[in-house]
Amino acid sequence: MSVPTVTGSLVVVGTGPGRLELMTPATAAALAHATDLVGYGPYLDRVPLQPGQCRHASDNRRELDRARLALSLAAEGRRVVVVSGGDPGVFAMASAVFEAVEVGEPAWRDLDIRVEPGVTAMLAAAAEVGAPLGGDFCALSLSDNLKSWATIERRLKAAAEADFVIALYNPASRARPAQLGAAFKLLRTIRSGATPILFVRAAGTDQARVIAATLDDADAACADMRTLVIVGASSTRRIGRWIYTPRSERS
Amino acid sequence: MSVPTVTGSLVVVGTGPGRLELMTPATAAALAHATDLVGYGPYLDRVPLQPGQCRHASDNRRELDRARLALSLAAEGRRVVVVSGGDPGVFAMASAVFEAVEVGEPAWRDLDIRVEPGVTAMLAAAAEVGAPLGGDFCALSLSDNLKSWATIERRLKAAAEADFVIALYNPASRARPAQLGAAFKLLRTIRSGATPILFVRAAGTDQARVIAATLDDADAACADMRTLVIVGASSTRRIGRWIYTPRSERS
Repeated sequence: MSVPTVTGSLVVVGTGPGRLELMTPATAAALAHATDLVGYGPYLDRVPLQPGQCRHASDNRRELDRARLALSLAAEGRRVVVVSGGDPGVFAMASAVFEAVEVGEPAWRDLDIRVEPGVTAMLAAAAEVGAPLGGDFCALSLSDNLKSWATIERRLKAAAEADFVIALYNPASRARPAQLGAAFKLLRTIRSGATPILFVRAAGTDQARVIAATLDDADAACADMRTLVIVGASSTRRIGRWIYTPRSERS
Repeated sequence: MSVPTVTGSLVVVGTGPGRLELMTPATAAALAHATDLVGYGPYLDRVPLQPGQCRHASDNRRELDRARLALSLAAEGRRVVVVSGGDPGVFAMASAVFEAVEVGEPAWRDLDIRVEPGVTAMLAAAAEVGAPLGGDFCALSLSDNLKSWATIERRLKAAAEADFVIALYNPASRARPAQLGAAFKLLRTIRSGATPILFVRAAGTDQARVIAATLDDADAACADMRTLVIVGASSTRRIGRWIYTPRSERS
């Protein structure tokens, strides 16, 4: 008696922050080997075309739909790659895929699923300016699409009080213009006005642009959807054109 | 009248978590182009040999000395690459390089210094088990070589109370066998005993090994120098053989 087997596969990858030279060879190999790519259109556009490969581009907000489509295709025996930017496990598609598995077809649990790590935005942003993440740090998404603003404020406050460096993902969008200003307002009640604030736009691409400010004079309007904001710790400092956080709290 | 110029360069890179396929092409190119590689011996051993290249291997603890050597070589006109594992900006050499610039020769400030981002250990560890870093998270080094244990406890407490996922770097070494046990003890006063605890050893290598436990039964002896420990958030869950943190706090 033969047991029905699932022969497809699903690999969740991140293309890195932008330049192809920041995509890992493991991710490039998964992309080259795929029969189907599923992802947000602009991320798919970064991937070199392969003959005969199907591309399923979708809107940025339909993450669960996209994950379900990818799982269905894999269950049909296709070699599917789900494409995120950055690292797929950081505010990206890997979590949506496992969420779709949890609530979806029981057979999806037997699929061959794998996650390939990548260079997430905060690492590329940090490299553009020096080493601001040199000490303990947090990564916090300012988007309240999936969690409450109260949760965001509570985490921001805790991170600021404990003197973590803070990397703010999704600091602003057209639908959410006010969050970053509110975050700065909260931070000003806790941290010194001299705290370095870095707006790094399009990190890891040829259009990278850095604005270095302090908490006192930081203007939330400097951030857009392509910006990563880094809030320094008390020891974060500038040396020449670089910003870094010493490894030691004693220095 | 000619102005003296500095012609050397210094690139700080991370080789990623282990497998060469997780090193970015940008880092591989910097390594291939270098006249001198400076780094901790085991990281240098991962890098393919180039004819005529000088390798300056050193002990793991001599980070500032290593940074000074690299800067001196660059000031002599060499093309120097400082080699870390993972990402060079996360508990690694980039911060030490800028610290050495700050306290070192004034001419070092004019050097051509660049940081290349890489895949840091927590991203590779997360990929091995699913998507545990799918929500807001912190990266915290448990080593008290460069900061006080009181600071570590304060940050751990803040992160646990605010329900961040927590990635613990340097959870244990022969010289520091007790820290991780003390960290679990503190976490048990704040977080549910059912909180997932993941011990991921040698993530991103062919010897990767995962131990999934809960805060109640986690044994600090499962960690060594090559282990990354991930402490889940309240929403972090297991589905089949994967562990993930949903993007939404409401799910």
